[in-house]
Amino acid sequence: MLTLFRYNWQVRADWFDWSESVPTEELTRQRTGGVGSILRTLFHVVDVEQAWILQGLQGKPEFHYHYEDYDSLDAVRNLSDVCSPRILDFVMNWCGDLENRKLDDFTYGEVLLHVVAHEIHHMGQLSVWAREVGREPISANVIGRNLM
Amino acid sequence: MLTLFRYNWQVRADWFDWSESVPTEELTRQRTGGVGSILRTLFHVVDVEQAWILQGLQGKPEFHYHYEDYDSLDAVRNLSDVCSPRILDFVMNWCGDLENRKLDDFTYGEVLLHVVAHEIHHMGQLSVWAREVGREPISANVIGRNLM
Repeated sequence: MLTLFRYNWQVRADWFDWSESVPTEELTRQRTGGVGSILRTLFHVVDVEQAWILQGLQGKPEFHYHYEDYDSLDAVRNLSDVCSPRILDFVMNWCGDLENRKLDDFTYGEVLLHVVAHEIHHMGQLSVWAREVGREPISANVIGRNLM
Repeated sequence: MLTLFRYNWQVRADWFDWSESVPTEELTRQRTGGVGSILRTLFHVVDVEQAWILQGLQGKPEFHYHYEDYDSLDAVRNLSDVCSPRILDFVMNWCGDLENRKLDDFTYGEVLLHVVAHEIHHMGQLSVWAREVGREPISANVIGRNLM
C-alpha cells in the first residue's frame, strides 16, 4: 500500500516540476472533463487525500481546503508538502488490523485503495491536457521509479 | 492486489457497456493524448495486461495483439473476456514468494502494480474524452463497488 502512495507522491512531484515551465494561463485554463483545470486537479488530489486520511480514517469531521485559498502553483505544492508527511505517518503505521475496520459503509482498506486510484485517474486526465498544451506528459510508469 | 484487478475489470466492463451507446465514429475518432482513441485505449489496456501477466511474469516471450485485428467494440470485449479469466487465475494464485522475484530490472510486485496503475491512468483519459462526446464518464470510485 505504501508503494502506491509513494508512487503517487513521486508522480505528483513530477507534475509540479512540469508545471513550473507551463504558463499560468495554461495551468488555470478551463478544460473539458475532470475538475476543469490542471492546477485545480493538483489541488483536488491533495485535498481529497488529506480529507480521507487525516480526517475520515482518523475519526475526525470531514474538512476540505478551498481552492480559492490555494490558487497558485506554489500554494498547492506547499499544501501538498504539509499534508504528505502526515499521511506518510498514517500509512507507515498502517497494520492489517485496520484493513476491515469500517468507516460508514466502507472498509479502511477500500478507502486507501480509493484514494490511490483517485489520484492515478486524475493524473490520466492531466496527461491528455498536457498534450493539448503541446507538452510531453509525466510518465505513469510504476516500474523504473525504484519504489520497491 | 486482487481487489485492484477486480476494480479494473469492473470499471472496464462499465466502459464497454457505456461504449455500446456511443456512435462508432466517436469510439474510433482520433483524439489528443494517450493512444489516440477510445476503442484503441480499451484494446491497449487489455493487451498490455495480458502481455505482462500471461507472458512476462510467466517467463514466456512477449506477445502483443494487433489493434487492426480487434478494431471493433465486440472484438475488444471478446479479447478481454478471453484474457481476464487467465489473468485472474494467475493473480488468485499469487503468493508473497513471488513479490520479490525479478523480471529484468523489476520485481514481480512492481510489475503487478504497474499493470494496475496503467489501466487506471488510461481510464482517466477516457473520462476526458467522454465529456468531449457530451457523455457522463464511468465513475472511477473504488468505494461502493463491493470489492472487499
